[in-house]
Amino acid sequence: MTTPYKILGVDPGTNILGYAVIEVDGKQIKVINFGVFRLEKFSDHHEKLKEIYLQLQEIIEAFLPKTLAIESPFYGKNVQSMLKLGRAQGVAMAAAITMGLDIVEYAPKKIKQSITGNGNASKEQVAAMLETILKIKITTSHYDATDALAAAICHFNQGSVKGGATTKYKDWADFIKKKS
Amino acid sequence: MTTPYKILGVDPGTNILGYAVIEVDGKQIKVINFGVFRLEKFSDHHEKLKEIYLQLQEIIEAFLPKTLAIESPFYGKNVQSMLKLGRAQGVAMAAAITMGLDIVEYAPKKIKQSITGNGNASKEQVAAMLETILKIKITTSHYDATDALAAAICHFNQGSVKGGATTKYKDWADFIKKKS
Repeated sequence: MTTPYKILGVDPGTNILGYAVIEVDGKQIKVINFGVFRLEKFSDHHEKLKEIYLQLQEIIEAFLPKTLAIESPFYGKNVQSMLKLGRAQGVAMAAAITMGLDIVEYAPKKIKQSITGNGNASKEQVAAMLETILKIKITTSHYDATDALAAAICHFNQGSVKGGATTKYKDWADFIKKKS
Repeated sequence: MTTPYKILGVDPGTNILGYAVIEVDGKQIKVINFGVFRLEKFSDHHEKLKEIYLQLQEIIEAFLPKTLAIESPFYGKNVQSMLKLGRAQGVAMAAAITMGLDIVEYAPKKIKQSITGNGNASKEQVAAMLETILKIKITTSHYDATDALAAAICHFNQGSVKGGATTKYKDWADFIKKKS
């Protein structure tokens, strides 16, 4: 007997923020909700951060995930964009902190590796793999939530979720092999 | 008649975070509280962010400031440290957002300029000027709160605080001149 639990995946940005809630029960994964906050309409940077905080809090209250899995590049871009990214991550983490979630983070390469077996996979390849595995259709409007969904599933693949799966999966090929 | 109001100054960092609460009544400024959170004891980065969030929330609940004035460098350092700084700023901002505070930010140069009239002033010079103006003693244990205190006063000097002072002060020399 396993207890189902939920993972919230977030791919934070100050213009578009992708999120996904998956429910895991033993080896079964179900996509509960996934989507995108479009923040371009807020011209003020602080307003964008406020929106991220409030909307994520709403999602956490609605679905009660136990873990926030966040996609986090550790390198690249310039200092300005890293500061902005850090702020978006910070408010997302704060929303999780107030609701008592654990926080885990994974580098983009690690997430791609976990989903497709290839750390340099394209976004299209990741999306196609997620569609196959989860039996869902990722439409254009939800396309920017792909990385968030992948982050949540990457965390599940680590097999380290408390009270959940304890088997470690290298990648999806490994998952399918051990599951069947 | 003016209504007294409070400004919370914060100088965020993931190892040391300085904060200061000042109360402003017309042209009078009173230091209500200032100090430092030492976060070195938390080895986990997420634990540090959690501490920042919870401790700032406590201070906001205790003193009910209407504005968060944050010291924010926009340049410099490397992408890694900017990401960390952005996260610390993000959780500090989230604590303010949940309590309905306005957020304003000032670059370090602007703050130094506002306090000493010199954007390249040393920390010692800023501290000495604050001691003179506010008739306080900044002891070693509170030394890292200097920039937070300066940020709060920098905001007051802008004279743009809703319901508060409307006179703009270029720097302290100007403030003293207009006040007397």
